[in-house]
Amino acid sequence: MESLSVALGSRSYPIHIGAGLIDQRALYAPHVRGSAAIITNEVVAPLYLTRVRSALEGSGARVAQVVVGDGEQAKGWGTLDRVIDALLAARLGRDGLIVALGGGVVGDLAGFAAAVYQRGVAFLQVPTTLLAQVDSSVGGKTAINHARGKNLIGAFHQPCAVITDVATLDTLPDRELRAGLAEVIKHGAALDAPLFDWLERNIEKLLARDRGALMYAVRRSCELKAAVVSQDEREAGMRALLNFGHTFGHAIETATGFGPWLHGEAVAAGMVMAAGLSARAGILAARDAQRIEALVTRAGLPTRAPKLAPERWRELIALDKKSAGGRVRFVLLEGVGRAKVEAGVDERLVDEAIAAAAQ
Amino acid sequence: MESLSVALGSRSYPIHIGAGLIDQRALYAPHVRGSAAIITNEVVAPLYLTRVRSALEGSGARVAQVVVGDGEQAKGWGTLDRVIDALLAARLGRDGLIVALGGGVVGDLAGFAAAVYQRGVAFLQVPTTLLAQVDSSVGGKTAINHARGKNLIGAFHQPCAVITDVATLDTLPDRELRAGLAEVIKHGAALDAPLFDWLERNIEKLLARDRGALMYAVRRSCELKAAVVSQDEREAGMRALLNFGHTFGHAIETATGFGPWLHGEAVAAGMVMAAGLSARAGILAARDAQRIEALVTRAGLPTRAPKLAPERWRELIALDKKSAGGRVRFVLLEGVGRAKVEAGVDERLVDEAIAAAAQ
Repeated sequence: MESLSVALGSRSYPIHIGAGLIDQRALYAPHVRGSAAIITNEVVAPLYLTRVRSALEGSGARVAQVVVGDGEQAKGWGTLDRVIDALLAARLGRDGLIVALGGGVVGDLAGFAAAVYQRGVAFLQVPTTLLAQVDSSVGGKTAINHARGKNLIGAFHQPCAVITDVATLDTLPDRELRAGLAEVIKHGAALDAPLFDWLERNIEKLLARDRGALMYAVRRSCELKAAVVSQDEREAGMRALLNFGHTFGHAIETATGFGPWLHGEAVAAGMVMAAGLSARAGILAARDAQRIEALVTRAGLPTRAPKLAPERWRELIALDKKSAGGRVRFVLLEGVGRAKVEAGVDERLVDEAIAAAAQ
Repeated sequence: MESLSVALGSRSYPIHIGAGLIDQRALYAPHVRGSAAIITNEVVAPLYLTRVRSALEGSGARVAQVVVGDGEQAKGWGTLDRVIDALLAARLGRDGLIVALGGGVVGDLAGFAAAVYQRGVAFLQVPTTLLAQVDSSVGGKTAINHARGKNLIGAFHQPCAVITDVATLDTLPDRELRAGLAEVIKHGAALDAPLFDWLERNIEKLLARDRGALMYAVRRSCELKAAVVSQDEREAGMRALLNFGHTFGHAIETATGFGPWLHGEAVAAGMVMAAGLSARAGILAARDAQRIEALVTRAGLPTRAPKLAPERWRELIALDKKSAGGRVRFVLLEGVGRAKVEAGVDERLVDEAIAAAAQ
């Protein structure tokens, strides 16, 4: 087991990474003060719920559980209301612990429930997808979707710990594994050229679920993300760089109704679009944009966006949370591993990048 | 105009108190960065919306507005969803400002919308009821109600400023004025014997809307609350004392379906019950419990609770957010101005206090 720390003063927390961690009572015990509620989904529950429940009960918790539907559709008001109702029925107190067991959707939903239940209770992340392990379980962003757009309702609410069991990736469907790789590629493309180089050499190993390669990808991603979050918890500055590919990606998810595209797939196509826009804007070498598209392709991820009317694209992009003073701010690349936020992008270039990327 | 400060480090904020403040652009201008959205209700809108809108526009803001229904019923998922949708339709960005114009319901709802809209935007309180001016606009507690209980979904989200215009009390219905006095009495009873003494001498002046007396009551209440919030923002300790009367009060509101009883009315009866319980528990002199009941009576507020089955009372009280480790913690009085949190109250005494208070 390796442990990293997200340094946030009195709210600092550990990320434990290893195989077989979900059964280790000692990792849960420091966070149990009374009752706990596990929030998971119908796919993960049969695989891991009993094991996590046992570990929590072994740590002295009274344990309730809430099982929600699978997929991005579960991240809405309706499911949140059902979760809150179940927490109240279970009499979870303000000293209770909410445990998110699952992927990014469960983590975002459970984290937001923890942020607003009785004005905030502790929560613990137990990510079981690659996407959640390398990205969404770390950093305290929680949210639900709104019909108008992705993650538009949410809160910053840091977990008290992240227990990342890479052995749970053994049961992950291939498509979800690839979707998780999109966020690893993002970390390399936006922040860390050596990671990107490593991915170019090791992408096949990752696709073959080589445990050592997966451990490295998870650990390096968590290191990068922890460093960014420690410096800019609330995304006042550099944290926005982690949104590379997400302005276009969220637009794809919203346009397609949260479901047909996995988040990582939309981000993959979004990164290719953002790299293309960076090249059009003259700040990224065409060769580097091609490297990004090539790696996305080798990871088995989409490089093209669905066809939408130009006005619909503009409308969706305008909803991006990074917009300020009515202007959309894009995360562009100046090179592999060197992202920057750019507010003054010519709308014509954006239209061209979209036209080039649409299927 | 007098200005106090709620000292919370980098999140400190001013409370401005005076007559005619809602028109003063200079009080809004420091908080405007782009667009603003005023959230108010159908009763307050015809009285003050245009004036606040003008002041904001004069400060350079593009201004949107959302008008919700009157009363506690508006503090639910349905209204929140409508508010969020209106903010999105108005393209309020993360640099936008939400302005709560109204009483406690509007402040709690708008504050919670500000806490979760795009993971949090700034908000400004412009309280127009006595209850909001002396209590709910200060301290960053935001929430909506759940069918199972009051304020069960919410967040701590401090405003960037509170603009308290005591002239707006001129249009406040008598019943709402009295409801606000309940929270002033609470501040005296729980924290400040001299304020309680002053109220015993000046309650008629307050009921007659003497502006000087109202200014004093508002200022002293805000001073007390600001001091408590500065020391214990998240209610880990002494802030719980401000909930004197609220365990029973929230039970009354939930039992009656959020509406027939104003919040202040429920707190008034709740204070009489909590003082009665304190006397039964042997920590408050019967004479002091009588002083509290007498002042509540003179303020024209209810001293008796609705009749409910004892099991229903127990169920409602168990939902209290102050409960810890499955035990309800009551805020009791050791004397006028000296509240304390008590976890080990004999359930038989609670039943007796309820029986004595029920109509």
